Amino acid sequence: MNTPSINAQRLLTELTHLAQIGAGPDGAIHRVAGSRADLAARDWLSKTMQVAGLTGHRDEIGNVFGRVPGSTGPWVLLGSHADTVPAAGHLDGAYGVVAAIEVLRTLVETGHPAADHIEIVAFWDEEGVAPDSNGGLGGSTFLADSPHIDDIAAYLEVHVEQGPRMEAAGLDLAAVTGIVGVERYEIVMHGQENHGGASPFDMRADAGRAATRAAAALRPICQSIDPVGLIGNVGSCSFTPGAANVVPGEATLQIEIRGISEAVLDQTRTALREAYERIAEEENCTCTIRKASAKPVAEFNPEIVRMADEVCRASSDRTDRMASYAGHDASVMSTRVATGMIFVPSTSGISHNALEHTPDHQLVLGTQALLDTAVATAERLTTGQDSLSAAPPVLAAAA
Amino acid sequence: MNTPSINAQRLLTELTHLAQIGAGPDGAIHRVAGSRADLAARDWLSKTMQVAGLTGHRDEIGNVFGRVPGSTGPWVLLGSHADTVPAAGHLDGAYGVVAAIEVLRTLVETGHPAADHIEIVAFWDEEGVAPDSNGGLGGSTFLADSPHIDDIAAYLEVHVEQGPRMEAAGLDLAAVTGIVGVERYEIVMHGQENHGGASPFDMRADAGRAATRAAAALRPICQSIDPVGLIGNVGSCSFTPGAANVVPGEATLQIEIRGISEAVLDQTRTALREAYERIAEEENCTCTIRKASAKPVAEFNPEIVRMADEVCRASSDRTDRMASYAGHDASVMSTRVATGMIFVPSTSGISHNALEHTPDHQLVLGTQALLDTAVATAERLTTGQDSLSAAPPVLAAAA
Repeated sequence: MNTPSINAQRLLTELTHLAQIGAGPDGAIHRVAGSRADLAARDWLSKTMQVAGLTGHRDEIGNVFGRVPGSTGPWVLLGSHADTVPAAGHLDGAYGVVAAIEVLRTLVETGHPAADHIEIVAFWDEEGVAPDSNGGLGGSTFLADSPHIDDIAAYLEVHVEQGPRMEAAGLDLAAVTGIVGVERYEIVMHGQENHGGASPFDMRADAGRAATRAAAALRPICQSIDPVGLIGNVGSCSFTPGAANVVPGEATLQIEIRGISEAVLDQTRTALREAYERIAEEENCTCTIRKASAKPVAEFNPEIVRMADEVCRASSDRTDRMASYAGHDASVMSTRVATGMIFVPSTSGISHNALEHTPDHQLVLGTQALLDTAVATAERLTTGQDSLSAAPPVLAAAA
Repeated sequence: MNTPSINAQRLLTELTHLAQIGAGPDGAIHRVAGSRADLAARDWLSKTMQVAGLTGHRDEIGNVFGRVPGSTGPWVLLGSHADTVPAAGHLDGAYGVVAAIEVLRTLVETGHPAADHIEIVAFWDEEGVAPDSNGGLGGSTFLADSPHIDDIAAYLEVHVEQGPRMEAAGLDLAAVTGIVGVERYEIVMHGQENHGGASPFDMRADAGRAATRAAAALRPICQSIDPVGLIGNVGSCSFTPGAANVVPGEATLQIEIRGISEAVLDQTRTALREAYERIAEEENCTCTIRKASAKPVAEFNPEIVRMADEVCRASSDRTDRMASYAGHDASVMSTRVATGMIFVPSTSGISHNALEHTPDHQLVLGTQALLDTAVATAERLTTGQDSLSAAPPVLAAAA
């Protein structure tokens, strides 16, 4: 059976409506979780779901759900978050929520049987920027720990990429394979503070030189391990005491690595430690490496990834599989239920900014792909095929 | 005619006396210019000169002079500074002042004709650490601008090296050829602030990476230009905005180069600019290089350097010529009169610290070398040979 087509004009119009809630004179959107604008957006979403013939409810934390009246779980949950960072664009989160409404609305209007197996959600506080926030992903984390999670069979989210990879590769759509693990380290090189003029190069223990060599080595190390599935950043660098004529006695780097698999992250961790200890030794310094934080890799359900990939390839010849380098509610959901995501490109890779943009035809393609993947997932669940499993238990336990 | 031998025991005893003035319970010496201890030291120096049969005077700024009663200029001036940094050792400055007294005292006692052509000085505020200081070298700068400079034919200073080079090379003495020029630069790499996860390496304009590569390149560049007569330091490094997950949009280095000739400094300046602009370009960044300060090279009088070198070689087979990597009153004096210096080693290169130390036999060798060079210089001035010229006019003008 062919899937019905979404209403492209309605999708874009609803996106414009939502974008007006919290819009500032700067053209940016200010809808931080819990703000008056965020609450107004949730009211608007509830009303829009009502208009679409859906029944809505809001849970204790503020997640807004909608589904066909009388439908019973388990459901395939579609959605994203309705909150924004300050001075945001109009697509991050909002696109996935409006697309989810459009998908279920289309299925209801066309009397498609999958409509009874789909629920939609606008998650609370994904961004984690409000002063009283627990750091983001609040709505999905609440759901993952609530009894309602047992009624959810799978989770699908369409989102803008928030990076430049798809545009650079000329892609319309991507089936997302998972979300990179993110590890942050503080690297401290310990040397010997000394007079910058009096100390010949070969008699120094120059912590600054050791640290800058270590910083410069990050990129080639990452690229030698996995030129596609691994990325790193040196975000800060500081010398003590920090005077022009003093050889630094101590130097500190804050680095971050993001990898698509725990294996890649393991390998990187080992390679960096070896390189940094070797550099420290060459500079007569010692090196301390402290893990500041770690978010594990989220690996999406392979069967959902395969179905999303098939759907994308059917609607465009400019599609690929890729990992997400930013975090999403889908990473939390993947620890409990079979999960997948679909990406559309971000123009110039810009996000968290009023200039955030994706061409209309790609927003439409992404929403249609969400519908087709949702239908395929729902059919798979209702036709007695093997049930979809959530993420590997190890990852679920680590999250 | 053989030169008389200095009284080694008296030299070491007088050094110990001076070290008691301003000595703290921490074993360090606190004799910042203008402090009660500094003024007490100057009184003690005046009295010690009197006891040695010299006539003393103090100029308006606080320089303490001594010479044989009735002698008339031009004089060969011997000396150094009596002030210290806070928590200093007992040799920096003090050694050169006490050695100058010992030299003139020995010449007077032995009736050596050179005594009438020598003046000694304890300069005011070389260190420049007092709150009301003009930045150091105050006494020598005052003298260089005062009428008394016209009575000075040459200036000689014996000093501890304040670095580890002589000890590492196993030297007892060194004839100093000049004082390195010191240039400080602020290097700013301008890139594009970006999300550390969303931006693939090859799409970044990573100012932090450009800056750390530039920092790491300083040493090999310096060593390729002049492995002996050039040194550099990266004293500070900072990234903006400085968060682990943000590609730095701007990064700033404070660097310093010290070279023994303007030619070496010129070459280094050019090589650094070329390298930094190339690195910036490779990282899709731009580079701003701002000269923060510059002290020109002080080149000592070649004839005095030759005489000092000859004197050193006659008293030890462990001697060499070398440049000073720290500043001294001799750099100011070299802009007005023929100038030279003699170095003795600093144990472990330590200075500006209570642990400052030089073995006694080297302190004695240095003082004897000062006497011998002073006598040679005085004889040269009085026997109708070509008069010694000051530093090249270009350098004098630049100082």
